[in-house]
Amino acid sequence: MSRFFSGELNTLAPYTPGEQPQDKKYLKLNTNESPFAPGNEVIKALNTSQAELLRLYPDPECTMLRKAAAKRVSLNEENVTAGNGSDENLAFAIRAFCSKDKPLAFPDITYGFYSVWAKLFEIPARQIPLTDDFRIKIEDYFNLNCTIVIANPNAPTGISLSVDKIEKIIVNNPDGVIIVDEAYVDFGAQSCVPLINKYDNLLVVQTFSKSRSLAGARLGLAFGSKELIADINRVRYSFNPYNINRLTLLAGQAALNDEEYFKYCIREICKTREWTANELKKLGFTLTQSETNFLFAKHGEKHSRDIYRFLREKGVLVRRWDTPGIEDYLRITVGTTEDMKKFIYILKSCLEEL
Amino acid sequence: MSRFFSGELNTLAPYTPGEQPQDKKYLKLNTNESPFAPGNEVIKALNTSQAELLRLYPDPECTMLRKAAAKRVSLNEENVTAGNGSDENLAFAIRAFCSKDKPLAFPDITYGFYSVWAKLFEIPARQIPLTDDFRIKIEDYFNLNCTIVIANPNAPTGISLSVDKIEKIIVNNPDGVIIVDEAYVDFGAQSCVPLINKYDNLLVVQTFSKSRSLAGARLGLAFGSKELIADINRVRYSFNPYNINRLTLLAGQAALNDEEYFKYCIREICKTREWTANELKKLGFTLTQSETNFLFAKHGEKHSRDIYRFLREKGVLVRRWDTPGIEDYLRITVGTTEDMKKFIYILKSCLEEL
Repeated sequence: MSRFFSGELNTLAPYTPGEQPQDKKYLKLNTNESPFAPGNEVIKALNTSQAELLRLYPDPECTMLRKAAAKRVSLNEENVTAGNGSDENLAFAIRAFCSKDKPLAFPDITYGFYSVWAKLFEIPARQIPLTDDFRIKIEDYFNLNCTIVIANPNAPTGISLSVDKIEKIIVNNPDGVIIVDEAYVDFGAQSCVPLINKYDNLLVVQTFSKSRSLAGARLGLAFGSKELIADINRVRYSFNPYNINRLTLLAGQAALNDEEYFKYCIREICKTREWTANELKKLGFTLTQSETNFLFAKHGEKHSRDIYRFLREKGVLVRRWDTPGIEDYLRITVGTTEDMKKFIYILKSCLEEL
Repeated sequence: MSRFFSGELNTLAPYTPGEQPQDKKYLKLNTNESPFAPGNEVIKALNTSQAELLRLYPDPECTMLRKAAAKRVSLNEENVTAGNGSDENLAFAIRAFCSKDKPLAFPDITYGFYSVWAKLFEIPARQIPLTDDFRIKIEDYFNLNCTIVIANPNAPTGISLSVDKIEKIIVNNPDGVIIVDEAYVDFGAQSCVPLINKYDNLLVVQTFSKSRSLAGARLGLAFGSKELIADINRVRYSFNPYNINRLTLLAGQAALNDEEYFKYCIREICKTREWTANELKKLGFTLTQSETNFLFAKHGEKHSRDIYRFLREKGVLVRRWDTPGIEDYLRITVGTTEDMKKFIYILKSCLEEL
């Protein structure tokens, strides 16, 4: 830290993203990317003539993208805004809807970034323990007088809540915004987007990084009432109005228009997830019920730290945390069938040698 | 504003960017974009195989880009960080180096976003008047106990300060960071980057939006001591670690490696600027001494508001503000020679008819 760093922030502990090796020697199952390239529609959208237009600023209102996104879920474009990745939308929403008197509440085991944003914006955080089997007890979230953020499905557990249960949380917090982070929703859980016309305190955040194969393009959407979206845009226009670049806007729009490829990728990933889960069980792992593109698994005998290290040496990256409660677990991204066959093969040798 | 919007922010007045019409019917001289497409090296860098890699997250450390940027100015990569446009770097820097006790100081006439960020981060702002001929009196900036941001050349006046004078401000503020915003520096002013090894309180911010024809890709760089850059990265990793997408990283790197095209574009724009300035003088305008890719001009008789409106009706966008002190002025981006011939032709008819 330099002697100039703001004293107000000197306990800031930045988020640690999963390792992103820039060479290609790893089987990369650590950051929940899609194993499939973006579809042909996306590749076509990024043609040379579009690159030439990079001399011009992008549309700060992201009009075409918002239109495509709103149409797909039968909302109006005023119900949608776009972020430089879901992370940016989450940051804007937390800044907009929390304050010293309106803390941010979230499960104690969830996406690690929520607590970092609270710290950055000097907002009190209230962490609510999951049950022993990693479930959210919805009654714990009633009448909190907080802004609440729930990842559904939750990360890194992969477990989802039904829309009915989330609706109970919404109804029982009339004075707080409920942010539902649906980064992984496309892999089997139910979306809360259909509730948006019913509740003025619901914000749903989605990303193009997982089910739409565009982690490298950085694009997320937020859906909510016209008023909540206008609030987020107030923060956005006070921070970085041109937050989405031209090529990402085009890629996102093209991805939204190719429903067939989107469904194909999801189908394949879900199939491979079930195959991999079964193989892991045969090898002595217990797993949570994942409705995401990753598996959360614990071995009966070997410690995750040792497995992690062994896999890494053999060129396979998965993710683990030293966080109490989940330190025995590995989070494994579902790749292609070939990726996962290779993974299981290497894992077998790992368990034999450890 | 929804009933959920943070009370702390309820006086927030977001920045208003220049109009970005999405159709192509305007001669667009209002937001200081380059009239030239990105070079062939950039177009080549964005090839199909790169689009396929969009499924993977970008390198959060922006290693290759930072290496290329550091090499060009004979610094180390630890002296550079990258933002989603210069705006993001400026926002991060203001968050990192200001606080309730360390206000942000800047000229009263300058880039309109500085005051917006101060408000967003709840940091006091101290605005220091320019002289009547729009100049910065450097003594006004000595020993302020503030973080200071100076656009050099200044916007929208186009007037630059010499490095000698900025160095005096740096030396006379040993306890504050001096942020020099060099968005327009390539069009004729001197850069402060060579001072970075000499002062630990200097941060220089540059952009790819103007001289490198990449406004639509969103990319900015910040140069400073290793410690200042680490501080900005602390904020960046607490806000959005994957802030630069893959294609923009590639475009930026390719642009840095094509010095010849970069110099060609600047030469052309400076030549066209001088031609346009002369034509404007013949038409009765007075101009500031611009060292940017825009001209700041006031007519002797007709009011800028009327000229602005007339030009707009004829399909020409320029920029003006109702801000006291500059309400008589127009800011005109320098386009291609053909653009500016057309502009002068339409302007002539405007002055005849008004």
